[in-house]
Amino acid sequence: MFDRQLAKKAAENLKSLRAKKPLIHNITNDVVMNYTANALLACGASPVMAHSVEEVEEMVSHAGALVLNIGTLVPHRIDSMLKAGRRANELNIPIVLDPVGSGATKLRTSSAKRLIDELVIQVVCGNASEVLSLARKDAVTKGVDAVHSVDEAADVAIRLSNELDTTIAITGEVDLITCGGRITMVHNGHPLMGYVTGTGCAASAIIGAFLAVDREPVDAATTALAYFGLTGEKGANHAEAPGSFQTAILDALYTIDGEQLEKGAKIQS
Amino acid sequence: MFDRQLAKKAAENLKSLRAKKPLIHNITNDVVMNYTANALLACGASPVMAHSVEEVEEMVSHAGALVLNIGTLVPHRIDSMLKAGRRANELNIPIVLDPVGSGATKLRTSSAKRLIDELVIQVVCGNASEVLSLARKDAVTKGVDAVHSVDEAADVAIRLSNELDTTIAITGEVDLITCGGRITMVHNGHPLMGYVTGTGCAASAIIGAFLAVDREPVDAATTALAYFGLTGEKGANHAEAPGSFQTAILDALYTIDGEQLEKGAKIQS
Amino acid sequence: MFDRQLAKKAAENLKSLRAKKPLIHNITNDVVMNYTANALLACGASPVMAHSVEEVEEMVSHAGALVLNIGTLVPHRIDSMLKAGRRANELNIPIVLDPVGSGATKLRTSSAKRLIDELVIQVVCGNASEVLSLARKDAVTKGVDAVHSVDEAADVAIRLSNELDTTIAITGEVDLITCGGRITMVHNGHPLMGYVTGTGCAASAIIGAFLAVDREPVDAATTALAYFGLTGEKGANHAEAPGSFQTAILDALYTIDGEQLEKGAKIQS
Repeated sequence: MFDRQLAKKAAENLKSLRAKKPLIHNITNDVVMNYTANALLACGASPVMAHSVEEVEEMVSHAGALVLNIGTLVPHRIDSMLKAGRRANELNIPIVLDPVGSGATKLRTSSAKRLIDELVIQVVCGNASEVLSLARKDAVTKGVDAVHSVDEAADVAIRLSNELDTTIAITGEVDLITCGGRITMVHNGHPLMGYVTGTGCAASAIIGAFLAVDREPVDAATTALAYFGLTGEKGANHAEAPGSFQTAILDALYTIDGEQLEKGAKIQS
Repeated sequence: MFDRQLAKKAAENLKSLRAKKPLIHNITNDVVMNYTANALLACGASPVMAHSVEEVEEMVSHAGALVLNIGTLVPHRIDSMLKAGRRANELNIPIVLDPVGSGATKLRTSSAKRLIDELVIQVVCGNASEVLSLARKDAVTKGVDAVHSVDEAADVAIRLSNELDTTIAITGEVDLITCGGRITMVHNGHPLMGYVTGTGCAASAIIGAFLAVDREPVDAATTALAYFGLTGEKGANHAEAPGSFQTAILDALYTIDGEQLEKGAKIQS
Repeated sequence: MFDRQLAKKAAENLKSLRAKKPLIHNITNDVVMNYTANALLACGASPVMAHSVEEVEEMVSHAGALVLNIGTLVPHRIDSMLKAGRRANELNIPIVLDPVGSGATKLRTSSAKRLIDELVIQVVCGNASEVLSLARKDAVTKGVDAVHSVDEAADVAIRLSNELDTTIAITGEVDLITCGGRITMVHNGHPLMGYVTGTGCAASAIIGAFLAVDREPVDAATTALAYFGLTGEKGANHAEAPGSFQTAILDALYTIDGEQLEKGAKIQS
């Protein structure tokens, strides 16, 4: 039932990440900076958090990927994101965008759209309401309220990916990843992840880390989300409540090895 | 000895919170954003952290309560607090103020007073020195240094609540909550809470969550503080040092149910 | 083999810290604020995080030490650091500088150098690449790439301390602390510390706490680093992965007592 080739690629990406320890430059929100940095360290990546407009171009030039996250947004941080993003585009460094809270306020929605318009972004990763708020034409997401099945959600995601010309990753009970008509689904994860702040942001950052070693966006996002989802499953074996579960996710990011990931990845393609 | 009616209300509020999952809008300090968000999630509420002056009015309009916290204060965050607070007042959304560090610097003290002057605030929650620094007239808090008993502290709190025309919650070994001459005391808690940063801020945020489901400020603050104090007692059964205790509080926020809270609440009225 | 006098002083400093509970004023980065505050609380110190230019002079005047950390740097935070630092110098309050990321961008390197030029700083603490980026003359650090032994690193550190006229603490597998030709080395620590964000920043903050009770900079930095390193060793007995290790460090900061520190300190002088 599950795709063994992508499971194998997940294991290869994880091993490659730990061997290369790429620098991942994050311009992210104030709530999750610590957890994101710890998640990336536990994976084997080298995180750096830097958001001053005076240094982001220089910092990103050292990086294997750039992760932009618009939680706790302030307008001048968008300037930094654009500056870092343009430099990343020049240097062919992949970019992930997590449109946290897009759809909830005009500032967030318009900022996320502006980043997508002005930058070449490899992967946009968020929950369904955030991602669907990015559609330029209502037609694309019209009827979203009527989406009752994974198949219907997949149709909307495919249309949105075509419209925005980027890989879309919609996280949820089942994660959907799509680009150019191709679609994959990840069935890993655990409901307790919704009770820990920053798990979605950590997922996006880990997609960045995987992109640093695997430049095919659908593969990188799919394998990263299988890995992160598996940490939730493994974490839930050690913890029954959100405080200890938050810790257990970090532990699992560190202890899961390539073999465990290959065996545990539930990727459908 | 303890008030069974308020213990029962604590249980009802917790159940109601978990059923309704109200959005709690926090404009808070940089130290505790992550812990506050996790504490609210563990309770069953939906936290959002947003402090940009461009979006706070829109964000607060979706919220069940607004929590203002002046730790790591910068002046433009006060502008955001005022803007969000005015909109909350228009929409009849309750506000909690945690005057972190008021009394320690002029910026903090004057900012806290300005928020109280310009907004209708339902509950002001802080430790004794923070709360007492808010008095406009020295007469109200004169002799504070000579307060040696809970009874004397209660007198000062009652006078300050009358002067500021808001519910006052003073956290400490015994929490005092008072408004309009009515006073309650909460005897839950654990000394290790003083060794974890952000426990006071989490308490204020949880008061916000309780206000979203119980509009009577003294009841909401009292029941919230009993619940939070009980997490300290339960957490201390699982942890003997601050690192694991910090985690155990989050776990207890999630695992304590209405029945446990009703049984464990030590509220005096 | 190890210095028993300094081990004894480590124990005295820790006891003195817990008895006096000095206020430690941190102007630090957004990633580690929470962990730094919790680390200082677990030690027995009283942390305060305050970075607004409007209040730092007033806040630092209450403090036993000032800790400056340039991670997630923005230019106006340097203004606050300079203002707080000048006041600290006037009041004879010791300052620690952690030059996070110095060498990685011009903003960080020039800001760290400016702080050293304009302030009297008691201890500069960072990893080798950060600290060595502070040299004014290339001659001082020329050949750094060829440093292959602790002895060679020690030579560079001694020259840099003389050039900058401050105590230099270089953290690593072995920590080097030097001033005025005197040098000590700390052999405590654990490799997992590199997988937890903010451990270096916590080390600098704890040096600040030790300076508040021991004004001799080499002694304060050496004994603080032995204590912090020992928490890593003790933490690793309770945790095998970074999430639980992060928690175990905080627990160990709280539970290690003077006797354990005296026994466990591996200081070479």
